[in-house]
Order: sequence, then structure tokens, then C-alpha cells
Amino acid sequence: MYLRAISFLRRQGQDYVSSRDLADQLHLKSPQIRKDFSYFGAFGVKGIGYRVDTLIGRIREILKLSGTQKAALIGAGRLGKALALYPGFGLYGFEIVEIFDVSPKKIGKKIGNTKIQSIKHLGNLEKRGIRLAILAVPAEAAQETAERLVEGGVRGILNMAPCYITVPKRVRVQTIDIAMELGILPYYV
Amino acid sequence: MYLRAISFLRRQGQDYVSSRDLADQLHLKSPQIRKDFSYFGAFGVKGIGYRVDTLIGRIREILKLSGTQKAALIGAGRLGKALALYPGFGLYGFEIVEIFDVSPKKIGKKIGNTKIQSIKHLGNLEKRGIRLAILAVPAEAAQETAERLVEGGVRGILNMAPCYITVPKRVRVQTIDIAMELGILPYYV
Repeated sequence: MYLRAISFLRRQGQDYVSSRDLADQLHLKSPQIRKDFSYFGAFGVKGIGYRVDTLIGRIREILKLSGTQKAALIGAGRLGKALALYPGFGLYGFEIVEIFDVSPKKIGKKIGNTKIQSIKHLGNLEKRGIRLAILAVPAEAAQETAERLVEGGVRGILNMAPCYITVPKRVRVQTIDIAMELGILPYYV
Repeated sequence: MYLRAISFLRRQGQDYVSSRDLADQLHLKSPQIRKDFSYFGAFGVKGIGYRVDTLIGRIREILKLSGTQKAALIGAGRLGKALALYPGFGLYGFEIVEIFDVSPKKIGKKIGNTKIQSIKHLGNLEKRGIRLAILAVPAEAAQETAERLVEGGVRGILNMAPCYITVPKRVRVQTIDIAMELGILPYYV
């Protein structure tokens, strides 16, 4: 969240940020922020604050987000397409370098500059430097596809399919179920 | 999660489900599931299990998801378009009935059967039976747009913009930051 908030300030042309400004923006207390930043090895200057570029560099390093993070996208439907071209991934250094689908109608076409390949040609992603994958397939295909990804050496999966997927413990999964998040709201409103 | 899992089984043609099958699928313990279902007023039959339709009806009722849930979509970019046509919302009874954008290039065009309107014509959404909105605008426009939605009587917002939004306490916000979820993975893999 720090990375996101500070990058936002940089886009707005800010070179320095105070812990107080960040506290307001992130609904945190400024002593907490100063404590966290000192753990990061970043020290502010009284009356000026923290250098935005230094903070971004340090946080990226800590999160292992330095350099480019190659990712594969599985599923070139409407959501997959939006994800393939999603500008927000840039902040974290993600680059979707390969796209796969099962549909003969889609295979061979391009999204941006990336050609959609048959899932049959998934192969060993790890050998090609890809350890992350975004799963944007229907729920019915999610488990089987996740297993293929694991076989292909993927170590982290962003699961956009509305279901659980079961993977070995060494593989980390983050699940986003868009409809379920919306589904929570009517109870409260 | 129960609703999602049980609906999945129904799509696969199952009429009954046992607490044990659900436990396997949801990584829960079956006594917990039986306890939850008895709170819901749903009782299984030994050797047969729970009637899928009964469970779905009860859970929908509890979550206030009976009937149609009208929602507005703000932002008709790539992600907004994918959301407008996202089939997963059907499970919760959501229907995106109005779409808004600021871009003159988009206003007047259609996504599916819904015409994109100017955000200037947002007006009183509540009067038109819309209490929910999906915010799919850039971070820079999110706060201002959220305030317009609140003025328009919206009570629940699904925020897809990569930033916090500040709203009055009576308004509930669920935030999905797709890039941030992916951004967590490299640390672990």
C-alpha cells in the first residue's frame, strides 16, 4: 500500500512526502509510518520528509519487485484481454509476456503485441523465466489449468476464476473473485 | 463461498450435496458446515445430503441477494467493458443497468444493450432503484467519482481503482486492486 500511495504522489510530481501526508491518505498514524520506514532503512528529513524515489526503490527491493516480473496470462476472454492490457501492472514491474487460450478462434490472434498461443504449448514456463501466472479462465477449467501451470514450473498464481484451486504448498495463490466482492455489499446497504 | 460452491455443483447437474463433499471443496470441516447450515434453517437428510436449491435460496435470502440487484458501472474502459459483460455477476442477481463515462468518444456507444451515458447525467441513482456501483475509473478520478456516487444515493461501491476512497460511514466499499494482488506474489515465490 505504501508503494501504491507513494507512486501515486510521484505521478503527481511530488519529490518528497511527509509521514503525516501519507498517514492521512492511508488512514494510518504517522508514528507507525515513520517506524515502518526506519525498518526499511529510509530516513526522513525534518520539515522536508522522505525522498519519494528512495522510498519506492527500497519498498520494491523488499517486495522483490526490482526489475521486470515476467508473467503468463491464461485465458484470453474479455477479462483476460483487459488484464493483458491493464496499465496498473506497470507499477510492480509486471510484464505479461505470454498469453494462452484453448479456443481455436483466439489462438494466433494478438493482444497488444503478444500472440495468443494454444494452451497445449504451455511447456516449461520456468525455463523461459516465467514464475507467475494470471488465471482468467472459467471456474470449470480453473483446477485443471492450475495443475498445468504448476507442472510448467509456475510458483505464484493470481486466480481470477470464481472458485478455489488446490495446488502444492510451494505454490502461492492469490484469488480475486470480482462477483463475490460485489456480492457482499447488498447485505450491508 | 457456500453460495458460490453450491451454485457450481448445481451447474454440474447435482441436486443434493453432502456436508463432506462441500468440506473437501471448501477446505473446511464438515461439522462446521452442518452447524452453519442448521443456523440457516437448512437440514440435510442422512445418506442424501442437502437439497441444492433449498440451500441456494436460503443463502441468497440471508445475504439479501434475492431478486435482482441493480448496479451502475462508472468507467467504460477495457476493464469496465469486461465487467459490464461479466457473466459471474449473474450468480448474485446483479444487473448492470446504467453505464457512465467522461469520454466523448465513448458516450452514446453501447456495451451489450446498455448505452454509455455522460457522468454529468448520473443524477439520483437511488430514485432509479440503484444502490450499488462499480467504480472502474483511473486512480486519479476515483475519489471525485465516489463522491458523486454518494451524492447520487449509492450505498455500496465496488472500487476497482488502485487507491483508497474516502466515503461517509453509511456507505460500504469493497476494494479490488488487481495489480496489488499480483504484486504480493514475487515476495513469496
